[in-house]
Amino acid sequence: TVLGNPGPGVGEPWAGCQPESNSFAVGMFLGRLNTEQVFPYPSALSEEQEQTLQELVGPVTRFFEEVNNPARNDELERMEDATMQGLKELGAFGLQVPPEMGGLGLSNTQYARLVDIVGQHDLGVGITLGAHQSIGFKGLLLYGTPAQKKKYLPRLATGETVAAFCLTEPGSGSDAASIRTRAQPSPCGTFYTLDGSKIWISNGGLAEIFTVFAKTPLRDEGTGETKEKITAFIVERSFGGVTHGAPEKKMGIRASNTAEVHFEGVRVPAENVLGVPGGGFKVAMNILNNGRFGMAAAMAGTMRGILAKAVEHATNRTQFGDKIHNFGAIQEKLARMALLQYVTESMAYMISANMDQGATDFQIEAAISKIFGSEAAWTVTDECIQVMGGMGFMQESGVERVLRDLRVFRIFEGTNDILRLFVALNGFQVGGLGSALKSPLGNVGVLAGEVTRRLRRKAGLGSGLSLQDHVHPDLQESTLQCLELFAETADALLLKHGKNIVDEQFVLKRVADSAIDIYAMVVVLSRASRSLAMEQPTAQHERLLCDTWCQEVRGAGGVLGALGG
Amino acid sequence: TVLGNPGPGVGEPWAGCQPESNSFAVGMFLGRLNTEQVFPYPSALSEEQEQTLQELVGPVTRFFEEVNNPARNDELERMEDATMQGLKELGAFGLQVPPEMGGLGLSNTQYARLVDIVGQHDLGVGITLGAHQSIGFKGLLLYGTPAQKKKYLPRLATGETVAAFCLTEPGSGSDAASIRTRAQPSPCGTFYTLDGSKIWISNGGLAEIFTVFAKTPLRDEGTGETKEKITAFIVERSFGGVTHGAPEKKMGIRASNTAEVHFEGVRVPAENVLGVPGGGFKVAMNILNNGRFGMAAAMAGTMRGILAKAVEHATNRTQFGDKIHNFGAIQEKLARMALLQYVTESMAYMISANMDQGATDFQIEAAISKIFGSEAAWTVTDECIQVMGGMGFMQESGVERVLRDLRVFRIFEGTNDILRLFVALNGFQVGGLGSALKSPLGNVGVLAGEVTRRLRRKAGLGSGLSLQDHVHPDLQESTLQCLELFAETADALLLKHGKNIVDEQFVLKRVADSAIDIYAMVVVLSRASRSLAMEQPTAQHERLLCDTWCQEVRGAGGVLGALGG
Repeated sequence: TVLGNPGPGVGEPWAGCQPESNSFAVGMFLGRLNTEQVFPYPSALSEEQEQTLQELVGPVTRFFEEVNNPARNDELERMEDATMQGLKELGAFGLQVPPEMGGLGLSNTQYARLVDIVGQHDLGVGITLGAHQSIGFKGLLLYGTPAQKKKYLPRLATGETVAAFCLTEPGSGSDAASIRTRAQPSPCGTFYTLDGSKIWISNGGLAEIFTVFAKTPLRDEGTGETKEKITAFIVERSFGGVTHGAPEKKMGIRASNTAEVHFEGVRVPAENVLGVPGGGFKVAMNILNNGRFGMAAAMAGTMRGILAKAVEHATNRTQFGDKIHNFGAIQEKLARMALLQYVTESMAYMISANMDQGATDFQIEAAISKIFGSEAAWTVTDECIQVMGGMGFMQESGVERVLRDLRVFRIFEGTNDILRLFVALNGFQVGGLGSALKSPLGNVGVLAGEVTRRLRRKAGLGSGLSLQDHVHPDLQESTLQCLELFAETADALLLKHGKNIVDEQFVLKRVADSAIDIYAMVVVLSRASRSLAMEQPTAQHERLLCDTWCQEVRGAGGVLGALGG
Repeated sequence: TVLGNPGPGVGEPWAGCQPESNSFAVGMFLGRLNTEQVFPYPSALSEEQEQTLQELVGPVTRFFEEVNNPARNDELERMEDATMQGLKELGAFGLQVPPEMGGLGLSNTQYARLVDIVGQHDLGVGITLGAHQSIGFKGLLLYGTPAQKKKYLPRLATGETVAAFCLTEPGSGSDAASIRTRAQPSPCGTFYTLDGSKIWISNGGLAEIFTVFAKTPLRDEGTGETKEKITAFIVERSFGGVTHGAPEKKMGIRASNTAEVHFEGVRVPAENVLGVPGGGFKVAMNILNNGRFGMAAAMAGTMRGILAKAVEHATNRTQFGDKIHNFGAIQEKLARMALLQYVTESMAYMISANMDQGATDFQIEAAISKIFGSEAAWTVTDECIQVMGGMGFMQESGVERVLRDLRVFRIFEGTNDILRLFVALNGFQVGGLGSALKSPLGNVGVLAGEVTRRLRRKAGLGSGLSLQDHVHPDLQESTLQCLELFAETADALLLKHGKNIVDEQFVLKRVADSAIDIYAMVVVLSRASRSLAMEQPTAQHERLLCDTWCQEVRGAGGVLGALGG
């Protein structure tokens, strides 16, 4: 599936970020300044990895420029055969599969860079590849036993078989915990019988291998009670009983296949359980959590391509006796587009580097990058059309297709609305929505104690810590003021609402928006600082982008202040 | 044409609003409170007109619900024959043509109401009808001689012949004054020879009658010089030499035909000049100016339909054990959607009533309604998709088609960017862009004198006038503070920039945004006041919408204040 996947963790007891987390975003809510992951701007590529990457960038770029035809894929509502074949030859179906299993063994950063190129050229192709490896068989990489990996990964890495991720059901979109597909264990314990239907499954009509989430009965050893919990399975189409519906007619990403997948009495061997029985929700959420940076990377690429089209138009189009790039209204648009691209790109590669460096607590950052990237790309592409005027509305320009493709990125793999709640609720370290009722971790007493602890920490924030050692002196920054205001507001909200904060979605959305803004600010401060320190050719341009972003975040601070008051 | 038409007046010497204008928007820039057109909320229908309208609403609604199939039209990339035939039978091709010429003779308000229904159901059909009568032959209604009207209107009113508006050229989109199509008068003076190409002409492949704008040489009686000026012509396809290109492949409004139209040596009789030779630019701008309220009306209908879909989904969809309309994040979306619909609808019918009551100076208001309506509808439809999640992205839901259709409404008949400049420059009573260079009306001296005059007037605004007699006491309003801040800022900007204000697009955009916000505020204050005074069933709902809007406009005031400082 890609469509309609839920936010991570929403609807299940909150898994928790440890207080000693190194995550900047987690620290932000606690009034702590965690700089380890964000300063200096990380680069996680060894020289050898850098070289491998450079060797891939050329051929992949050429392939998309010379072989793939995005307009044709869109029209056909599938990839052209030459594209499919070419991608297989490039190794694009097994980018992160270890070389010993037939893949390219790329790190997250290397993967991000290639996804970036795909995103620049054809998001429909990107979804086919992403549904396959970013979620379709990612569970095998994260949770597979050696035997499972050996059995499945080699064929998946070459694209000989295609994978799909099957979570969403007609009644379960954002609320993934409520799925009804069931896998009944056989009395002998050697297999499960799987029944149920999944919808909006990317690659659903192409895949031979499915990561399927189903409810299974589990006996609680303590109480002796039997409960239904979600378990993840690797299911082969060849098991029998697997069918799919017609390809869905979609607004965009039409090159990709989306279909219902039905499981009727499918016999799944017990050894095909992925992770532990009953641990399927965590498997699903970690797969999604591990894939989000890729979405931001794709969006960064999309925006780079679109920005180039807008600039090309603006520098060539004459109206009122002047090239339109000389008009302030156009300049402002182009500047904002460049800014949004820069922020998204900076987020994507910071998170991929954090992951490559072994960070385990990056779920808030990953969610932020998905929200920010998908909305930024939407805005940038929409503005490109506006810059191009009537031409942008014509299919010929190739921009309207990108806008159609992009619409779903704010919806799938966790709608941005659900992810905003996730950012805020994870920040507050309280469960969300369903879980708030089922398994409240916090109560007002605990939360109030927490606030006291926070207030102590915050005092430290104001007096002791500083970003001066990290941020280049040429940059205007006001991170600390923003962080203090944010932490103060978060505390005030917790004191005011107690555990009922989980139901205050109007407030949570604004808290999330502020967290997104501030994280974005820190990310660009970090990247621009590095560029200035290294005296890169783009450094002064980056300084302008960074200063503009920081100024706008400060301007938006009023909303946050008003919330806490 | 519909696509790519320019803003009115941009690129030509500014035609000027009289200082004694009754326009609220004009007064706003002058520091004057013109209430005549806005309070009380106008209704321009006689009892008979109301009855006629009611008799039409039923059949037109039924036609769109039972006969027309928007998804099918979109797929076919043309209207189904049954739709075309049915529309003709309904009289939809001649809504405002006088009955004696075979039309329905509707007022602007009646027309707005029917366009509203069309907009609710099928924007592609709406464009076909609009390109025909709102711009295609509107020139005949506004400027036609009795002979011209008699010759053409009867066939146009029945839809026997279809009309198109031909202004835009490859090199002339927003800058309409720069067209290259030429009409050379014959030595005998009895005909013109027309040569040139127009692009993105709505109905271009269907039309038999074209309103064409072309440069003609005109001798200035004073100087004896010959200049090229724009003249409007009524051109029949049957004159010969008229051809059209293949239908353009578009993102949306695919039910409508868009094509290039070529004129090669077309002999146009001199009696087919529309208006006076050389007066074509004014003809074009007045046609567009007179049609804009219809766009707002269509958008109001679109939003009504989309809002109903979103509400239906939200009240039926369960996630996390609750109907999603009980979640704050969804409620906020629905509330904002309702608000945007209400504002747009209130603008559309206020302007149509003003026009029916004989107002002549409504160009700023009409431009505002087009900007606001097209952006509001885009936001509302985009949010409907977000509320529906994955379902919204599927063609089956019928919402993604509306979003595709809507994209062009922010572009055609004056891009919203150009129209924002138009709002600000007309408010400042200075020419814009090209005209600023060609024929500067103002210089710093004149402008400074103007500011002095304004400051005197503004004193009157603060001390004497009040809206208390007009606005219902239950409504929170702060119009006067907003107006004072606006007028102060406008004055400060004129003093600061002088005539160079025309080049300050960054500033002009923000002035326009503020003007839009304030006009919107006054419009909803007026409408809600009427509903409260009449104790209509919706009055309390309208009060909430109105208060919310006013509060948000006050909140946005900071931007404006910062500009003037």
